[in-house]
Amino acid sequence: MSDVARLAGVSIKTVSRVVNDEPGVHQATAERVLAAIDQLGFRRNLSARNLRRGSSAGIVGLVMEDVANPFYSELTGAVEEVARQHGRHVLAASSGEDPDRERELALEFCARRVDGLIVVPAGVQHGYLVPEMRAGTPAVFVDRPAGDVVADTVLVDNIGGTVAAVQHLARYGHRRIAFLGDAPDIFTAAERLRGFREGCARAGVRYDEDLVAMGPHDAPGIGATLRRLLRGPEPATALVTGNNRITVLVLRALAGQRDRPALVGFDDFELADLVNPPVTVIAHDVAALGRTAAELLFARLDGDGAPPRRVVLPVRLVTRGSGEVPA
Amino acid sequence: MSDVARLAGVSIKTVSRVVNDEPGVHQATAERVLAAIDQLGFRRNLSARNLRRGSSAGIVGLVMEDVANPFYSELTGAVEEVARQHGRHVLAASSGEDPDRERELALEFCARRVDGLIVVPAGVQHGYLVPEMRAGTPAVFVDRPAGDVVADTVLVDNIGGTVAAVQHLARYGHRRIAFLGDAPDIFTAAERLRGFREGCARAGVRYDEDLVAMGPHDAPGIGATLRRLLRGPEPATALVTGNNRITVLVLRALAGQRDRPALVGFDDFELADLVNPPVTVIAHDVAALGRTAAELLFARLDGDGAPPRRVVLPVRLVTRGSGEVPA
Repeated sequence: MSDVARLAGVSIKTVSRVVNDEPGVHQATAERVLAAIDQLGFRRNLSARNLRRGSSAGIVGLVMEDVANPFYSELTGAVEEVARQHGRHVLAASSGEDPDRERELALEFCARRVDGLIVVPAGVQHGYLVPEMRAGTPAVFVDRPAGDVVADTVLVDNIGGTVAAVQHLARYGHRRIAFLGDAPDIFTAAERLRGFREGCARAGVRYDEDLVAMGPHDAPGIGATLRRLLRGPEPATALVTGNNRITVLVLRALAGQRDRPALVGFDDFELADLVNPPVTVIAHDVAALGRTAAELLFARLDGDGAPPRRVVLPVRLVTRGSGEVPA
Repeated sequence: MSDVARLAGVSIKTVSRVVNDEPGVHQATAERVLAAIDQLGFRRNLSARNLRRGSSAGIVGLVMEDVANPFYSELTGAVEEVARQHGRHVLAASSGEDPDRERELALEFCARRVDGLIVVPAGVQHGYLVPEMRAGTPAVFVDRPAGDVVADTVLVDNIGGTVAAVQHLARYGHRRIAFLGDAPDIFTAAERLRGFREGCARAGVRYDEDLVAMGPHDAPGIGATLRRLLRGPEPATALVTGNNRITVLVLRALAGQRDRPALVGFDDFELADLVNPPVTVIAHDVAALGRTAAELLFARLDGDGAPPRRVVLPVRLVTRGSGEVPA
């Protein structure tokens, strides 16, 4: 800083004012100071200063699948809220369901000295995090478990949720129930399919593989999938959708059609109660999912040395109309 | 690394394999290596390695208002897409509309050596970024301009949008049109209010301050606000809502009511076409907003030295029903 002051012909105090964006410096003087900073290539030191200053706040890194999915943006918001209460910032990044990207991002965060990590795993191998965890960066896994590491994990009751969905539809007389799930290598998708099968068994409904359509689904494809499920010789009369994205795709594909199948969606979503008919869902508290993960992380940062915890949050059926249609 | 190898009694190659999570190491050996890393407190070097490795990928920092707002999560998703094409990661953080937090986050990003910054400003003073920008970290402002810095900026046509909304409602005979905007110190809220006034002038509708309700709005408050606007001696027959969050609050407050006012909302949103009645909106391309900002940033990173640009993206009226109700 004294180099800058000398070059700009001002006091160190003035340089400090300019750098910290404090009032009381003439524009021309500020320009001179900035030019001097420029000339001396001061970036490294500025950054070091910021890092020192920033480190007092502290950072939590969050790696999730896709921030543009409202489920993850709500989860991120909840993590931010808890972090704020603990005087920390959250930096969030999307893996795009790519294990390599998840690993890169998690290691980027560690390299950039986060206090802790919250990860929605895309992959099933997390050995790469063990050195970082042992070196003192706690990691909490959320929505899906870590692959080959024992660590704090917060999940929702995926199986219980789809069991309840099938039982609910069976109560309205449905015997041909289809399941539209996400890609089967995604933990939550596989678990919800397991729950679907178990629900069929418990409700005395025949499980028919032809009525299962696993993803990934997209807008162009979902129409053909629905036609197959709903127009065969033994068509489905009810649908269980495996997450909020699939539910919205189905709603859009069915819009304006008569004779719509009964529908129960996994995940609640904004406006589910205001579309026509309102959508019956298996709801879970996304904010609680984020909060619980963040609180586990901060407990670790505060020195909690207990063995890793696995928390499974409950789900509940919210009946709104779309699922209460007789077969 | 040689210290770890010596302590664990293995080759440097084996340490490297464990650290890089490569196959071909027995579990017991890996455990020994990790214990050695642990014992030697190797975190700093691991991080340095990751930082070096990570730096080749490069990071863009994004500071926005609130990731839980679908507008911002879509914006973030679009920035991520462009960054991916350029081999960069995006780390995103929410300022919560707090200028101090915006500044802290932006400087955290600089301290953590991002390649560039994209900022949705919460505050109106950005002199704090000048040293970083001069030191070679480009910054692009999106959705709102920077306060006191000339920099690349991408906006939408806020004024044109609300002008069009008022003119549209006036065409259906509305003369008592209310505006529900966000907090007036937010740039987009102030601009949209200006557009609302200008729209009234152009459409020959009297501008009545009593029909303007600026935020922040919340679910408990919006009901009282609507009662005031819709039940006075000269009630409003039409509403213009200033952003997607306010539109959704209004939809929820009006749900199930008869004699609903005509409604045009600023911002499109998911399921706007599937609620009842479908919502007429002033739509702009949120993905284009994020993409344009990211492309400006990458042009700067590729050496584009042209003077700062200001891009204003167009908006368009999407008629769906709620705005086509005669007075």
